[in-house]
Amino acid sequence: MTKVALAFDLGGTELRAALVSKEGNLLSFAAAPTHAAEGPEAVIHQIELLAAQIRAETPDLVPIGVGIGAPGPLDPEAGIVIAPPTLAGWYEVPLADILSNRLGLPAKLENDANAAAFGEWRYGAGRGAGSMVFVTVSTGIGGGVIADGRILHGRRGLAAEIGHMTITNEGERCFCGAVGCFEAVASGTALGRRATARTRQFDGSMLRNLSADLDVTGRHVVEAARKGDRQALELLDAEARWIGIGFTNLLHLYSPDTIVMGGGISHGFDLLHDTIVATVRDRAMQAYRDVPIVAAQLGRHAGLVGAASLVLWNDHSTDSAAQGLAGSDTPGANTLANEGEVNR
Amino acid sequence: MTKVALAFDLGGTELRAALVSKEGNLLSFAAAPTHAAEGPEAVIHQIELLAAQIRAETPDLVPIGVGIGAPGPLDPEAGIVIAPPTLAGWYEVPLADILSNRLGLPAKLENDANAAAFGEWRYGAGRGAGSMVFVTVSTGIGGGVIADGRILHGRRGLAAEIGHMTITNEGERCFCGAVGCFEAVASGTALGRRATARTRQFDGSMLRNLSADLDVTGRHVVEAARKGDRQALELLDAEARWIGIGFTNLLHLYSPDTIVMGGGISHGFDLLHDTIVATVRDRAMQAYRDVPIVAAQLGRHAGLVGAASLVLWNDHSTDSAAQGLAGSDTPGANTLANEGEVNR
Repeated sequence: MTKVALAFDLGGTELRAALVSKEGNLLSFAAAPTHAAEGPEAVIHQIELLAAQIRAETPDLVPIGVGIGAPGPLDPEAGIVIAPPTLAGWYEVPLADILSNRLGLPAKLENDANAAAFGEWRYGAGRGAGSMVFVTVSTGIGGGVIADGRILHGRRGLAAEIGHMTITNEGERCFCGAVGCFEAVASGTALGRRATARTRQFDGSMLRNLSADLDVTGRHVVEAARKGDRQALELLDAEARWIGIGFTNLLHLYSPDTIVMGGGISHGFDLLHDTIVATVRDRAMQAYRDVPIVAAQLGRHAGLVGAASLVLWNDHSTDSAAQGLAGSDTPGANTLANEGEVNR
Repeated sequence: MTKVALAFDLGGTELRAALVSKEGNLLSFAAAPTHAAEGPEAVIHQIELLAAQIRAETPDLVPIGVGIGAPGPLDPEAGIVIAPPTLAGWYEVPLADILSNRLGLPAKLENDANAAAFGEWRYGAGRGAGSMVFVTVSTGIGGGVIADGRILHGRRGLAAEIGHMTITNEGERCFCGAVGCFEAVASGTALGRRATARTRQFDGSMLRNLSADLDVTGRHVVEAARKGDRQALELLDAEARWIGIGFTNLLHLYSPDTIVMGGGISHGFDLLHDTIVATVRDRAMQAYRDVPIVAAQLGRHAGLVGAASLVLWNDHSTDSAAQGLAGSDTPGANTLANEGEVNR
């Protein structure tokens, strides 16, 4: 009998659901635009409908439980969504209990970044690591930490707010109010802003051509750099230095066995990697310099696979991670997840 | 029968030993200058002599094990001292196994900063916290993290290298080679350097009077500030801002229930506290702003008490921490430890 879990990735714009096997394969998948403006009951009803749809597609498979990734802040122990800025009217919603009752299955809740980290750890680029830091560099910067074989939660599940560590005293003020946040200088948004500032409308540059002479985004910079555009390559080099400074801090603070980079900007990972590593080698203390920095492997389904993993791997010990994976078949989490990015 | 552990705090300059009770009391204590230049065998012999002395003083008490705090880098799982810069000739020494054999007791090894953090968590300012960050601000800045009820280790036990997180792009180059390390701008050394730069020999200032017209140290600044000296108060205010920036990062990254500050500069904790808290409130995201920041309680014996705790509390779960402490008598770790600082 295949061991499977029902997984949900609840985002502010999209709600995704899947049936995921112990091997990390997506056996069925469904998605819908989140009715985020209509309050919790409407969204919970959507979840029920997707669950019914998924289970109708695979009637012979009985999930052992439900895993849910949702936006923070949330309390993973209590299973409560506290007050996510992207979901209107959600305040202290005991989502795990509600779904457990309605779906008749045990349910576990985790914040979306931690769920994605957990997915990459169980089935992706972090397999076999005792400790791992997962960083998404997209519109913002977020992440999750596996510390000594467990998701690092801290008070109210609020650990690993990586984007808002201060790494400098320069640059534009972050939306959070501080100056020098990792996110404010190294996110895709910051990269796009620098590219926009460096070019002008109708200047004939590749960056402006790609952006149809509107504001340049981080994605445009990656695209132009891939075509060899010198301005874009210089911008990516500066971007990689900022990422390297932030990653050096993460090495010193968490001492992971690997750093896994996901998010939209990781589409340019091959172009960024060497300068990130050079910056880390330049700045990190000796013992941390050779820790591998790798690209995420699960793409946009990392959160979904991770949510399922909360149920499929409910013993979070390091031993079970190492031994379980060493003893299992090659995971295949990318069956339906071979492109795209982790949403942040 | 009193449950006791034999504890050692192995420093580069001093070796300390104690018999510590489950209540955190030091029942006997001995210390000697570390024969650090003579290599591991000489120092291990010193440990054996101190153990014999301690046990002779309390012949009716049989320790259940030995806990050792030692300088990093070290591997706490394997019990191996890797290569501490302050102990000549120590390279991959399996100290836990050696002491276990020679003393006939189970032995646990932990790096000194983590041991001190563990002591403050079990018996000091961090009692009852699920997660706690301990920071020593002295010559350098170091620390240890209790994450979700366990010491955070990471790869090779190297997590929580707090002093070398980059928090700015200004200031003098850190001894580690990078610019902007927390330690380089906020340590007692940095404070003393700023005080020295701001005054001149024979200028009649209180700072120079206290330092006998030599270089001003961080301790002199605290002392002068306590006497109301305006220069010193301004210097402490700037110091507290740097500490506040670093602490804000620690809140975002580890989400502790409390931050505990020790080390020589924490002698001025009462003078620093308000500006540290104001800086955190100004820079941290809403959910982290009200986390208590408190002074360490165990003084220079935190490491010793913590080393004993490794043995006395070998179930590291959060539950045992919260319940065990809630149900125990008032801990009295300061019986012999009512002054001084945690050595770094």
